[in-house]
Amino acid sequence: MHLFIGNKNYSSWSLRAWYLMSKFNIPFEETQLVLDTPGFYNELKKTFAVQKVPALIDGDLQVWDSLAICEYINDAYLSGAAWPKYITQRAKARALSAEMHSGFMALRSEMPMNIRATRKVDLSSEALKDIARIDEIFAQQQDVFPNEWFFGDFSIADAMYVPIVLRLKTYQITLSPEAQQYCDFVMRCPVLQAWITQALTETDIVECDEAGTPV
Amino acid sequence: MHLFIGNKNYSSWSLRAWYLMSKFNIPFEETQLVLDTPGFYNELKKTFAVQKVPALIDGDLQVWDSLAICEYINDAYLSGAAWPKYITQRAKARALSAEMHSGFMALRSEMPMNIRATRKVDLSSEALKDIARIDEIFAQQQDVFPNEWFFGDFSIADAMYVPIVLRLKTYQITLSPEAQQYCDFVMRCPVLQAWITQALTETDIVECDEAGTPV
Ligand SMILES: N[C@@H](CCC(=O)N[C@@H](CS)C(=O)NCC(=O)O)C(=O)O
Ligand SMILES: N[C@@H](CCC(=O)N[C@@H](CS)C(=O)NCC(=O)O)C(=O)O
Repeated sequence: MHLFIGNKNYSSWSLRAWYLMSKFNIPFEETQLVLDTPGFYNELKKTFAVQKVPALIDGDLQVWDSLAICEYINDAYLSGAAWPKYITQRAKARALSAEMHSGFMALRSEMPMNIRATRKVDLSSEALKDIARIDEIFAQQQDVFPNEWFFGDFSIADAMYVPIVLRLKTYQITLSPEAQQYCDFVMRCPVLQAWITQALTETDIVECDEAGTPV
Repeated sequence: MHLFIGNKNYSSWSLRAWYLMSKFNIPFEETQLVLDTPGFYNELKKTFAVQKVPALIDGDLQVWDSLAICEYINDAYLSGAAWPKYITQRAKARALSAEMHSGFMALRSEMPMNIRATRKVDLSSEALKDIARIDEIFAQQQDVFPNEWFFGDFSIADAMYVPIVLRLKTYQITLSPEAQQYCDFVMRCPVLQAWITQALTETDIVECDEAGTPV
């Protein structure tokens, strides 16, 4: 199995799929492509109809899109273990994942993932609303499962939000204590720390993902 | 079970969930809210953290987001029958669904769903790229399953693309013959025709969804 990803410093969607697969110890090879370069598109074009990362090859099968990759891994390799066991929790986990997958546009564009940086940004009211919603989600789940993943055991929903935790750190956003507790919990994960360590060795600069002023 | 939807003329995400549930004869009550009105947000606020449609209530459970609702119905009521039976087809169906769920932004903003209208629009190069990709998807699946759903039997992937079929008609977009064949096949579906019939009885105008010039 072969996963194509972007720069570890910047590629938030890549991180979601990579993190899910790594957390569950699924063996895979990875190919890293530099975002926003001709080589990125040329390489993906050889195999994929859509030239975005993450993108997965498993034998003859191509799966593009982070959420579809997570669902496929859950389905093909984990007998469903990547979603919560109870149907109502599973439904909520999928709703949270879909909300991330299709939403938070202001936050995503004004606070691009940039692991190595520490920045200050002026946020629009839309981005502030996104942050308030993130705070609500994190705090609500911590209320039920303090110092644990959203639904106790790790699930795809946590993988979908992990780049948000990193963005909140880069742009030094103040959260409620309960929401911050979830962020601190996530940051202690060794698998995430391994990604961060690799990100910090990278030197490529992707201009469109550089936002805010250094502090 | 209770599904909240928007205007049938305009609300493309509502259609996706409504269509999936209706195609599989899942019994549900529906409440229709008029998009872009205070009443819309006030009603959803009573029950949902996110004020968007579609939104589903099933007993104590709230599920927001079209894709999460489809996955929940598949999981709780259909024993998996809303996705293709074979794992590789299922993975592809989920990738296509995720691509729709998170993408086609230019097409979605320049060609809003507006069932009652016939319009001409000037499209950006991004929107034209989106249409080319839609054509490719429709034609490729017709190549394997001519005059059938994407994967032979109806699946969530078809539900995700059904509003696109309606938009292509409203804005009179010319497709390849194979892609048009899929559109014609979808348009013959009586469940879709029932939604359209109801849409045509509506009189509310949602300004932000009125694009192009009448022909
Ligand atoms: N919905 C996709 C989004 C993937 C995406 O936009 N990835 C970015 C990198 S994080 C990318 O490939 N950008 C290149 C481009 O859009 O040209 C997913 O969930 O995987
Ligand atoms: N990702 C959501 C999108 C839902 C959505 O944006 N729905 C529109 C109507 S089609 C809506 O509720 N708009 C109201 C708003 O955004 O304020 C889904 O798949 O259900």
